[in-house]
Amino acid sequence: MIPALPPLRVTRSSHPEYAAPFSTRPVMAGGVTVGGERPVVIAGPCTVESREQTLSIARACKKAGARMLRGGTFKPRTSPYSFQGMGKEGLEILAEARAETGLPIVTEVLDPRLVELVGSYADVIQVGSRSMQNFPLLTEVGRYGKPVLLKRGFGATLEEWLYAAEYVALGGNMEIIFCERGIRTFANGAYDRATLDLAAVHALRRLTPFPVIVDPSHAAGHADLVPDLAAAALSLGVDGLLIEVVQPGADRTKVKCDGEQGIVPDELASIVARAESEAALRRGPLAPVASNDSDDGRAKNRRVELVKQ
Amino acid sequence: MIPALPPLRVTRSSHPEYAAPFSTRPVMAGGVTVGGERPVVIAGPCTVESREQTLSIARACKKAGARMLRGGTFKPRTSPYSFQGMGKEGLEILAEARAETGLPIVTEVLDPRLVELVGSYADVIQVGSRSMQNFPLLTEVGRYGKPVLLKRGFGATLEEWLYAAEYVALGGNMEIIFCERGIRTFANGAYDRATLDLAAVHALRRLTPFPVIVDPSHAAGHADLVPDLAAAALSLGVDGLLIEVVQPGADRTKVKCDGEQGIVPDELASIVARAESEAALRRGPLAPVASNDSDDGRAKNRRVELVKQ
Amino acid sequence: MIPALPPLRVTRSSHPEYAAPFSTRPVMAGGVTVGGERPVVIAGPCTVESREQTLSIARACKKAGARMLRGGTFKPRTSPYSFQGMGKEGLEILAEARAETGLPIVTEVLDPRLVELVGSYADVIQVGSRSMQNFPLLTEVGRYGKPVLLKRGFGATLEEWLYAAEYVALGGNMEIIFCERGIRTFANGAYDRATLDLAAVHALRRLTPFPVIVDPSHAAGHADLVPDLAAAALSLGVDGLLIEVVQPGADRTKVKCDGEQGIVPDELASIVARAESEAALRRGPLAPVASNDSDDGRAKNRRVELVKQ
Amino acid sequence: MIPALPPLRVTRSSHPEYAAPFSTRPVMAGGVTVGGERPVVIAGPCTVESREQTLSIARACKKAGARMLRGGTFKPRTSPYSFQGMGKEGLEILAEARAETGLPIVTEVLDPRLVELVGSYADVIQVGSRSMQNFPLLTEVGRYGKPVLLKRGFGATLEEWLYAAEYVALGGNMEIIFCERGIRTFANGAYDRATLDLAAVHALRRLTPFPVIVDPSHAAGHADLVPDLAAAALSLGVDGLLIEVVQPGADRTKVKCDGEQGIVPDELASIVARAESEAALRRGPLAPVASNDSDDGRAKNRRVELVKQ
Repeated sequence: MIPALPPLRVTRSSHPEYAAPFSTRPVMAGGVTVGGERPVVIAGPCTVESREQTLSIARACKKAGARMLRGGTFKPRTSPYSFQGMGKEGLEILAEARAETGLPIVTEVLDPRLVELVGSYADVIQVGSRSMQNFPLLTEVGRYGKPVLLKRGFGATLEEWLYAAEYVALGGNMEIIFCERGIRTFANGAYDRATLDLAAVHALRRLTPFPVIVDPSHAAGHADLVPDLAAAALSLGVDGLLIEVVQPGADRTKVKCDGEQGIVPDELASIVARAESEAALRRGPLAPVASNDSDDGRAKNRRVELVKQ
Repeated sequence: MIPALPPLRVTRSSHPEYAAPFSTRPVMAGGVTVGGERPVVIAGPCTVESREQTLSIARACKKAGARMLRGGTFKPRTSPYSFQGMGKEGLEILAEARAETGLPIVTEVLDPRLVELVGSYADVIQVGSRSMQNFPLLTEVGRYGKPVLLKRGFGATLEEWLYAAEYVALGGNMEIIFCERGIRTFANGAYDRATLDLAAVHALRRLTPFPVIVDPSHAAGHADLVPDLAAAALSLGVDGLLIEVVQPGADRTKVKCDGEQGIVPDELASIVARAESEAALRRGPLAPVASNDSDDGRAKNRRVELVKQ
Repeated sequence: MIPALPPLRVTRSSHPEYAAPFSTRPVMAGGVTVGGERPVVIAGPCTVESREQTLSIARACKKAGARMLRGGTFKPRTSPYSFQGMGKEGLEILAEARAETGLPIVTEVLDPRLVELVGSYADVIQVGSRSMQNFPLLTEVGRYGKPVLLKRGFGATLEEWLYAAEYVALGGNMEIIFCERGIRTFANGAYDRATLDLAAVHALRRLTPFPVIVDPSHAAGHADLVPDLAAAALSLGVDGLLIEVVQPGADRTKVKCDGEQGIVPDELASIVARAESEAALRRGPLAPVASNDSDDGRAKNRRVELVKQ
Repeated sequence: MIPALPPLRVTRSSHPEYAAPFSTRPVMAGGVTVGGERPVVIAGPCTVESREQTLSIARACKKAGARMLRGGTFKPRTSPYSFQGMGKEGLEILAEARAETGLPIVTEVLDPRLVELVGSYADVIQVGSRSMQNFPLLTEVGRYGKPVLLKRGFGATLEEWLYAAEYVALGGNMEIIFCERGIRTFANGAYDRATLDLAAVHALRRLTPFPVIVDPSHAAGHADLVPDLAAAALSLGVDGLLIEVVQPGADRTKVKCDGEQGIVPDELASIVARAESEAALRRGPLAPVASNDSDDGRAKNRRVELVKQ
């Protein structure tokens, strides 16, 4: 019941060295391995709003165990009257946060004309849910060559998602990270924002050797649900999480974008701990905890048992 | 149960001269009024594949009563291996078809860098379903100023659609035509491609004074269903239809894009006749049939009765 | 793109006398033909609340041109604290309304133990959306033998709907009327209650010879939208409509069930007129208007043209 | 963003002794506590097909660590031509399996007339997804008094689900177990059968003190996906799982119902181990592993930390 697709550059069949089910072709970004043995927690503010806010959250994320920093500077906003992001100035702030914390940067690009600018700052270029089928943009990030985090469109099928990645791959860029963030269903609105589709994560991990991560924040839409969705994703063995963080005590109503769904650093630390314990469970009781980012993921070239016994 | 929105440039409240329910602020494009008393049938090939194919279909559409010509030259294709369109050469062919038939051209733009090129040929610039939240693109077509046909994203809410139009309006361009083309639901795949959301058409016509048209072809996904969905849309009093046409006897499997859903010119003629009879019904028994495109739609500034009695 | 199914008792292939596309095997109920040349408008209160309310609405529906009377006496209510219907007393009231107006009765049964009771009053037994896969109930109404109006489950596929009807047919009851009432989608809540799936109506009319009607009231959820959805359904050539009516000037907030979606009798009369004009259009210019209910629908054994020319 | 509801018998506000978030009012069934500290894995064949098949699977489930036995004897089948279950004979077989293995029985009832019969065998009466809004059935199981496993309708909102439970509670039966089994979305069919809605599980556990379990088998639709969905559910702290099991080496195409989604006993054992390790994680490093079913769940009257540190 996994969909049959013609062989693509992004399907497992084109990567014989990753033929084993669930084995992952890692993506290296800013010295961090996504798709290695340890899930990578990517955290940060929804939006870069100021130097102080960003540096403060970045430090807290670093302390909580996050290994990459996220933050939007060009924002896809439903309304043209909502804050559209700080643009280049925001990128400078992210660069400063990276310099201070050592965390590589993930940030979104919306416009094919800005791939070069955003790419010159970012360690991973994010293509957002609303841009998943923005084919000129996909082509540009494919050409540019830096690692790409490709979110699923909230109304997109798995097949459409894979073909979107194929646009990137066809440009010569194989450094692709898939990110599930929930799909739109009749149930949304009452208790979540999108329905996290873990079956798609499972199918994707079968079909492609590329790392798959999950964004529980946008699926949840409110902070209270984020830890549960994060734990659920980790239990599938995903390669990372993309999480929005707010400062403790922040007035959520004044956060310029998605204030309801940011978690505080203590909750982030719990999620990082869960990620580590999940990874330990998968490595088995005798495996040493990876102490750095040098693992290349090939040790995962075996079907991990759900629970080592 | 019509959603309450803050006043926008695209909502009725900002257009006191179109305060009457369902009254329409017409859009003039290439000499044709969209939003006047006669629904405008826009027809043509899914994709411009060759000069011969396009001219032949254009002539047939003209003969069948279509009043604008559609045809894709930059195509948003799920797969990068599918035909991506003829590009500028296709625009030249469309221009030739317009010169011969007199039909104004509707064609899609995908890339903000190509708005000027596409706009220099098109009478109406189409922003497709996958681009509805491509904000840099919306901003560019807003600046460019030519009439815009804004398709609903297949996973987009009504509110998101209105705000997408607001991006165009904010650029100074009020020549906006909305186009419903179906939403993604659990039912799709077995007997259609998307579920045509006529309730959204109703709500939109209440909320905004701009013309609303319907694309039955993409909702249907197969030619057999197109006339029924077209008739259904017309019965709501929509301002037009966007329909894909194939040549009679064409081998649908060789059509380069969406060959299953194109109807033949005879079916198009039936739909045009239905459009005219629907318009006559709405004008009432004594109103003369509009014989040209000079109506400005203000005569529609009354709530039309469903059936004149 | 019409789903392939094994031959069923309810598919066209089992009814060679109705082999022609869209030809309809009529259902006779209380002297009225459903599936003949004239669409049958079935109207009445959502719920029988009192003798006075029901008789008053029944008279108004009769006057407006409705040909059958609907009204719930056993109600499927989401909450156990909502009014559950008048039960047997309500059936008595419906019988009195029938005696006075001559309109046959459509009313719902929820419980297999009550099929006989409800059936002893009803001319058509309704199986509601929430009961579409209540297999013991389907079996009982199949055995009982009176005409059945089978609503589509709001989460059901076309295939599930056909198989639900097959349960009825297998009991020996071929007097089946299908009723589309909208499906649950991400869009619901803001401007409608369910998304009316007209493509399913089209497919069903191809696949089965049984009459297909549409309930615009439950799809709409508010009165304002009902005429548009009714007109849309009629434009497909459906065999009838099921519509909820409130008394003019009624305080909608005091109506015990679905007060927002009932239309007033004047709007009903407009819809009846639309139904008649649609039927006339389909019969063609020379066909006499059917002046009674004696048509057996076989005259429809031809593919009607969308518009006679 | 948790929906506000009026106080119901099934909401936390009516159970002051379970006021603490996520504290659970346990349900005792056949000597097993659902809603205690250990998640209860309920496993067995989709359908009781024969004495041998059922006893064999029951033994294997027992051995794998399951604590209750599931198996259908009255089956809700889409098609009337599919195997409808062994009925009373199947109940006898289940009773024999219970006698041999000591596992309490969960089995479904479809018909209000059979609640007494099914209830006389079952330890837990299941109300299936298609029956969630079968109000006469809910009322009967409410009156009957035995524990009820109430599956969510695949098209039902959380609010509808809670009100369905309220029908049971209003009959005087507070022994309710909720079971999430996936909702119908546009994504289904390609890689799953329904989209497991873990956000609803989270919301439900907040809103109600009753145990919440998850059925990964019906959401998955194929065996390969079941362990991942089971692990995801467990990571939220659910009170149990409902899982379909096939005999090792069984010819899935000959299984009479849902043969594709049954897992083999070894996979079941892995899931049981995962359930135990998840429970241990939640109890914290110092808590003893519960060695029997006597825990009453009150020890869970605290917000468990995602990971003990």
